[in-house]
Amino acid sequence: MNSNKLDARLENDCHLLGRLSVSQLLLMNNAMVPWFILVPDTDEIEYYKLSDELQLALNAEINWLSEFIAAEYHPDKINVASIGNVVKQLHVHIVGRAENDYCWPGVVWGVKVDKPYDIAAVEHIKNQLVTRLDGLFQPC
Amino acid sequence: MNSNKLDARLENDCHLLGRLSVSQLLLMNNAMVPWFILVPDTDEIEYYKLSDELQLALNAEINWLSEFIAAEYHPDKINVASIGNVVKQLHVHIVGRAENDYCWPGVVWGVKVDKPYDIAAVEHIKNQLVTRLDGLFQPC
Repeated sequence: MNSNKLDARLENDCHLLGRLSVSQLLLMNNAMVPWFILVPDTDEIEYYKLSDELQLALNAEINWLSEFIAAEYHPDKINVASIGNVVKQLHVHIVGRAENDYCWPGVVWGVKVDKPYDIAAVEHIKNQLVTRLDGLFQPC
Repeated sequence: MNSNKLDARLENDCHLLGRLSVSQLLLMNNAMVPWFILVPDTDEIEYYKLSDELQLALNAEINWLSEFIAAEYHPDKINVASIGNVVKQLHVHIVGRAENDYCWPGVVWGVKVDKPYDIAAVEHIKNQLVTRLDGLFQPC
């Protein structure tokens, strides 16, 4: 299946890292927390409307990303969410949270932050993903 | 599998409605939005650590609840999230959002509301669940 065109706001707010099996993988451009976003290949905007097969594949990706975040960042909690009130294109947030991060124990959504990644840091994360997700992640 | 003992904060903030296949079903005591919570039968606090079987069953329940919310409340968007920064017991929020609700387009978490359900309204929702989820939902 071809990748969907990314919503303009996602494109603006994130770095596109590459692809997993059924999704594009984005990194929110907020260097204060490890915040990844999966954008599955679908025009549906609600998770429950996805086919069983797509839900299963997307769940596998959520698991892979969660394991990646756990291994690289040792978070105190992982937040997983499909919200989409602002950006309609279906996307799933996977965020590693620490008890001393900037908005703990609140949620990350709606809290403005101006701490972008530098390019080297993004490349470093891509390389970590290539190493840890061995063959499952295709960097762009 | 036996139900886990509910976290005290969930018990305090919600009405226990009954059970689905692998979870207790709660209703957040906030009559301004349809806000359901699934508490799966597990001691794990991270979604990605659940067995494939439990993830699959929990996903089915997320789908059932989402369909229920869509059919009964005609929301503009359904928010699905596993956060757990405050309440560690693994729980999944499924919230029907409307473009004119009290915190649209922001998220519901962290916004204080004092609009509890009356008992008749909770019973009404239980009856709707019994009707719509025919046999999948066991009210308490």
